[in-house]
Amino acid sequence: MAEEHVVFVGNKPVMNYVLATITQFNEGVGNVVIKARGRAISRAVDVAEIVRNRFLPGVKVDEIKIDTEELDSAQGRQMNVSTIEIYLSK
Amino acid sequence: MAEEHVVFVGNKPVMNYVLATITQFNEGVGNVVIKARGRAISRAVDVAEIVRNRFLPGVKVDEIKIDTEELDSAQGRQMNVSTIEIYLSK
Repeated sequence: MAEEHVVFVGNKPVMNYVLATITQFNEGVGNVVIKARGRAISRAVDVAEIVRNRFLPGVKVDEIKIDTEELDSAQGRQMNVSTIEIYLSK
Repeated sequence: MAEEHVVFVGNKPVMNYVLATITQFNEGVGNVVIKARGRAISRAVDVAEIVRNRFLPGVKVDEIKIDTEELDSAQGRQMNVSTIEIYLSK
């Protein structure tokens, strides 16, 4: 199975993750997965769109998966958080 | 072509949109599209996940599309905003 190249999107400026994704593709990687959870999901979509539209027009979205992760908060309560995985290929 | 039943997700509490989606399915609709743009994208994913996991386990995600819309700001500047469409079926 091919190695999975992942960019985890968090709370930094969107261009940080755009650059990380472009760097992967420019190093010869054929597939990159952009992952995020919670409020960073919107930013993950921005990353994929900016990479495709502004920098690497040859990159396409193969699949998008959403899911739910169960987290235990510091107070011992269980919380659900949504996740997204955006599969890009060149 | 089948009529498209859409729930537009904005800035209201997530359960408003969950209820709107469940109501559509309970009225006999077989397909609902959850749409959002910008920061509401994370909330749209929450809506789909809550509907599936907590209320209607028979509902599945058929496809997720992301895109970019060009908006003209009040100052005449052009802005890009990401969009998401989550296609659910029962």
